Amino acid sequence: MRFWGATLARNLSAALEIYADILRRPHLPDDQIDAVKALAFQELQSIEDEPKQKVLIELRRRHYPAPLGQDRRGNREGIESLSIDSIRSHYRQLFQPRGSILSVAGNIDWKKLRDQVARLFGDWKGDPEPTLTLGPLLTPHDHIEKDTTQTQIGIAYPTVPIGHEDYHAAQGAVNVLSGGMSARLFTEVREKRGLCYAVWASYQTFKDRASVVCYAGSTNERAQETLDVTLQELKRLQEGIELEEVDRVKAGLKSSLIMQEESTSARAGTLASDWYYLGRVRGIDEIQSAIDSLTPQGITEHLHRYPPQDFTIVTLGPKPLRMN
Amino acid sequence: MRFWGATLARNLSAALEIYADILRRPHLPDDQIDAVKALAFQELQSIEDEPKQKVLIELRRRHYPAPLGQDRRGNREGIESLSIDSIRSHYRQLFQPRGSILSVAGNIDWKKLRDQVARLFGDWKGDPEPTLTLGPLLTPHDHIEKDTTQTQIGIAYPTVPIGHEDYHAAQGAVNVLSGGMSARLFTEVREKRGLCYAVWASYQTFKDRASVVCYAGSTNERAQETLDVTLQELKRLQEGIELEEVDRVKAGLKSSLIMQEESTSARAGTLASDWYYLGRVRGIDEIQSAIDSLTPQGITEHLHRYPPQDFTIVTLGPKPLRMN
Repeated sequence: MRFWGATLARNLSAALEIYADILRRPHLPDDQIDAVKALAFQELQSIEDEPKQKVLIELRRRHYPAPLGQDRRGNREGIESLSIDSIRSHYRQLFQPRGSILSVAGNIDWKKLRDQVARLFGDWKGDPEPTLTLGPLLTPHDHIEKDTTQTQIGIAYPTVPIGHEDYHAAQGAVNVLSGGMSARLFTEVREKRGLCYAVWASYQTFKDRASVVCYAGSTNERAQETLDVTLQELKRLQEGIELEEVDRVKAGLKSSLIMQEESTSARAGTLASDWYYLGRVRGIDEIQSAIDSLTPQGITEHLHRYPPQDFTIVTLGPKPLRMN
Repeated sequence: MRFWGATLARNLSAALEIYADILRRPHLPDDQIDAVKALAFQELQSIEDEPKQKVLIELRRRHYPAPLGQDRRGNREGIESLSIDSIRSHYRQLFQPRGSILSVAGNIDWKKLRDQVARLFGDWKGDPEPTLTLGPLLTPHDHIEKDTTQTQIGIAYPTVPIGHEDYHAAQGAVNVLSGGMSARLFTEVREKRGLCYAVWASYQTFKDRASVVCYAGSTNERAQETLDVTLQELKRLQEGIELEEVDRVKAGLKSSLIMQEESTSARAGTLASDWYYLGRVRGIDEIQSAIDSLTPQGITEHLHRYPPQDFTIVTLGPKPLRMN
């Protein structure tokens, strides 16, 4: 769970007081539960009219063991069974100092901030972090029948998580696939063949596992070809990568690193996520030199160690597709 | 049409050379037209599976006279009739120096930039800007029947455009409706009644006219109540506004002004849009003092001059709603 805010530097202290209240002394009032449940149902239901979102939610649910693959919107039974008591007990069990991370970026007075945080959170006590029990994996191929104009395609396959020595090579590989208008999926699936308007791949990480998630939406007539060409591009990755592609990827990664550096909000986010995933904060130089050291050979060798395979595939549309 | 880029300061000169090529010497190759048309169809078709987008597109098409209300994705007939000749002739007719604006923000060398722009664009010649002939207004109430899980609701009504002396009061009024979790639509439609998960209002301006556009998506059962309550909140605006509401709005507007100031990309965008809409660039102080001078009385007086009325309403779902 993530609480986030951006405010003027002079309001930081007042904002922290409020966040301490939210985290440590939430009201959780009884008389709002019906409205909250109605809203949760509404949000859950709205996904049924959003096939793009739906296919990615179902992809995730099949690709990761529960609870990792669960969607934050929950399900009907879960929402129906909510009571103020179950919410309060959830709060007591999971809102704990252990595992909590506070990150602040901007024009701060360190000593003042540290003293305030000590005052607000120093006496926060709680149980150890609960351990996570993972459920079984569901079947990796599925089709959701729906009378839509387009067929939605979601593909996921495992790769290395952040912190792994191959992490930057894995990022490089994803960006060869999908990182602008010269990337392979865009060129091969969209530009050359006109198969679909939207096609992309992105890297998603947990602490101990990570995936590449791909999306394509196509006409029902051309959906099979879109799936075939997309899978073919994923498999073709390990056959080799051009220097030109890696140069483009490096320029892209370095640009976004620099843009991110200029945003105080992004910096606060990176501080927290580095701490969460790695237990330390990476410096810009470290990331920059990892990007600089990307080579076609390095990325190809990574892809031989961790080839795109074991695909989870979920499609949504009027007709099922052949999945291999 | 807007071309946009963000790059390192040292790459500005090379990037400008490329933009000059794009604008003044585009390839427009014959052999890509089929793929481009296929993509345009795909994009057009994908809207049919996105009821939220669909209702807002249809709202706009009914609220503004053509071509102002036309969606950028065009329509089937228009895409079918595209040829490389019609594209080239469109290019010759509309890619003209008159009315073009170039804005650059960041760590620039002014003299060098000015000389390069003079070299790249100084001899660009063209016809005067074409004048716009507006079409007739369509009927303002419409329902699109579709077998969806939720009913989508779009409402638009006219207000004053940017540059009008009431502009900031109009912004203030929209933000009383929809500018965070204490705003009226969020509180009344979502939080108190749990009628819908998503509800918002936003301000949209052209040079000579502007609107407030509202969106709500609800279950089919509660859609009528959602529309009724939303319209009621719009009409209730002119009955008066609390000081507390205006204080919140002012804080919100000033925060986003400051956040925007920190983003070089946002600054480049504001420079261009100010020049486009106003023919001059506003200073931060000017905007800040306009926000500071907002009062409940000032906003209410504006709402008496320009009350929310003449609603365009478009709904999408299995059943039509009563629209007044």
